[in-house]
Amino acid sequence: MRTREKSFELVATDAQTKARAGLLRTAHGIVETPVFMPVATQGAIKALDHRTLRTLSYSLLLANTYHLYLRPGQQVLERFGGLHRMMRWDGAILTDSGGFQVYSLGSLRRVFDDGVEFRSHIDGSRHIFTPESVVAQQRSIGSDIMMAFDECIGYPASRQEAERALVRSLTWERRCWEAHCSQPFLYGYRQQLFGIVQGGAFADLRRTCIEELCSIPFDGYAIGGLAVGEPVELMYELTNRSTDLLPSDQPRYLMGVGTPQNILRAIALGVDMFDCVMPTRNARNGTLFTTRGRFNIRNQRFKCSDEPIDPAWEELGVEPYSLGYLRHLFVSGEILGLMIATWQNLAFYRWLVRTAREKILDGTFRQWSQQFLEQFYPDQQGERSILE
Amino acid sequence: MRTREKSFELVATDAQTKARAGLLRTAHGIVETPVFMPVATQGAIKALDHRTLRTLSYSLLLANTYHLYLRPGQQVLERFGGLHRMMRWDGAILTDSGGFQVYSLGSLRRVFDDGVEFRSHIDGSRHIFTPESVVAQQRSIGSDIMMAFDECIGYPASRQEAERALVRSLTWERRCWEAHCSQPFLYGYRQQLFGIVQGGAFADLRRTCIEELCSIPFDGYAIGGLAVGEPVELMYELTNRSTDLLPSDQPRYLMGVGTPQNILRAIALGVDMFDCVMPTRNARNGTLFTTRGRFNIRNQRFKCSDEPIDPAWEELGVEPYSLGYLRHLFVSGEILGLMIATWQNLAFYRWLVRTAREKILDGTFRQWSQQFLEQFYPDQQGERSILE
Repeated sequence: MRTREKSFELVATDAQTKARAGLLRTAHGIVETPVFMPVATQGAIKALDHRTLRTLSYSLLLANTYHLYLRPGQQVLERFGGLHRMMRWDGAILTDSGGFQVYSLGSLRRVFDDGVEFRSHIDGSRHIFTPESVVAQQRSIGSDIMMAFDECIGYPASRQEAERALVRSLTWERRCWEAHCSQPFLYGYRQQLFGIVQGGAFADLRRTCIEELCSIPFDGYAIGGLAVGEPVELMYELTNRSTDLLPSDQPRYLMGVGTPQNILRAIALGVDMFDCVMPTRNARNGTLFTTRGRFNIRNQRFKCSDEPIDPAWEELGVEPYSLGYLRHLFVSGEILGLMIATWQNLAFYRWLVRTAREKILDGTFRQWSQQFLEQFYPDQQGERSILE
Repeated sequence: MRTREKSFELVATDAQTKARAGLLRTAHGIVETPVFMPVATQGAIKALDHRTLRTLSYSLLLANTYHLYLRPGQQVLERFGGLHRMMRWDGAILTDSGGFQVYSLGSLRRVFDDGVEFRSHIDGSRHIFTPESVVAQQRSIGSDIMMAFDECIGYPASRQEAERALVRSLTWERRCWEAHCSQPFLYGYRQQLFGIVQGGAFADLRRTCIEELCSIPFDGYAIGGLAVGEPVELMYELTNRSTDLLPSDQPRYLMGVGTPQNILRAIALGVDMFDCVMPTRNARNGTLFTTRGRFNIRNQRFKCSDEPIDPAWEELGVEPYSLGYLRHLFVSGEILGLMIATWQNLAFYRWLVRTAREKILDGTFRQWSQQFLEQFYPDQQGERSILE
């Protein structure tokens, strides 16, 4: 069995919180952590081109195995020599295992001990995912970081459900590891494999899961099955307990999270990696994340505003389009509106985690994040008192 | 009455055709002609950002008075100090007068001697355009080049219809000129006003129109009412007769044209300026214009192609995305597909007119354009034998 090759380097740990700054080495470059991964579901960020991603210094994208399996499919991906070459993206790529997508299909899927049978959301055709097939797909994609196949459950779920899903997840994740180790590199470079912590809302089940997963030399660990409807304080509590138990020399990834507040809070709890559709999806309905707060650009009050969307546009790496112009584009249904809003939101998320890292390194993370959130959520006491 | 200030400089005239190279001075920069103007109907090129326009060295956009009148409206535009400032676009802008849009509304409009009453395509509200109101709107927009208000008729149209529309157009255009001259500059810079040649498919009516228009010191002349369904050879014939009559020291603009072949042919007939939705609209349904020809990217044959969309990508100023990737984006419904295709098509159109200008200057325009079209339309004898 392949032994662990060290890909993560812990650079600094904050003295006042559990926040960490690190470096994650991948076959396609070094990624500074904390990192936010924009979501490129089908191998493309919606409404953003590669050049803008580079302008924003994004170095790690997330793509979805489920979607890429359906389109363009394993055969096309292999003909290209993987997704990086197909996209002509020379940064790093992480792929989820399809577990969460299949969970999201609801009535279109059936879970067995051996895997999941589901119907395609595109044409209703039947497919089966097993731990081995999911590894094979992620090999075809050639992602720098592959995720193990797990069973994700919703919230609330009974202890019995959570236990059954945990046992399945552990079995599947071990099979993923074995499938991964039994084969040579497909494209000449090493792919990493992360395990995923499950166990629902039950802290003891999550502890058991972590203990079992740590016996497998995964390259990193994700905290899965959160942000599925549970109260946010429970999410923080379960995250906090998980980071207490996870090995400190491995990267930790909180899947599907979240708001600026969620991210800063989870960084303070020792999480290194994040992904979320929020900045991109919300951009497309006109919700902007800026250094002056969050707002919807369709609001009448922006009609004649000549101010740039974000006063910190230069630092963020965006163009100084005016609020009034962007509002006009949204009201008029122009695609350029989606493009500018997406650019702004991903610039903001990139700025947020990059600044968090700087503040961890200079020892001011706690004060800075508290101050930032008070300013970002001026009317929401609950949302901003996050680090207590 | 204001006298003509010379804004156009004829730099070279081709010896073998009527093609010309010129310079058009505007309040927002000098534009090299022949020029293709991308269409920014509502103040935005669909699926293309300003940065990409600058990358492609586009210096003159076309926006639509009718659309900007409805949204964001004259009041908002004036609050911004005009469209340039609202868009933060420092290149030049030409606005059509709304005549063609109102014509396109069909049953939603009624034409009177004094102007046009129409219903908004957005909410059905009633509005009236007169020559004076159309000038006022273009003043609020602050376009570098305003177009006179004309009555556009379809093809075929009877001689009687064409005559009536011609008389109206001439009256309206003179009123536009008077309204334009009677007022000081709104934003501190000079706006130009172009007249529009009408007369349907009747060469003698068009001759009369040109003679009348030339008594008004317009800054340039557009050939209007073509590309509305007439045979393409008739369009060339009427264009050829018009450029024979139009003053050689003024710019000539063939409105709403066209395909690469149409443009090269019209350049050979002495036209300087073009606009068309073709490169942008077709991009959004997957039709690409490239230096290797025109094709639809959804075609199965591109599924596994690792080749760049255009082998001349570097010269064109586009990114070397692969054919297979772009096909995947279209098949998957990704906005990035529309963005890349639009970028490619506008890069191609820019390259086409820029190269035409270079060839006019070095005296090889005729050979080059013949050769280019043979290669661009390899299977279409009719489309490529254009310069005979």
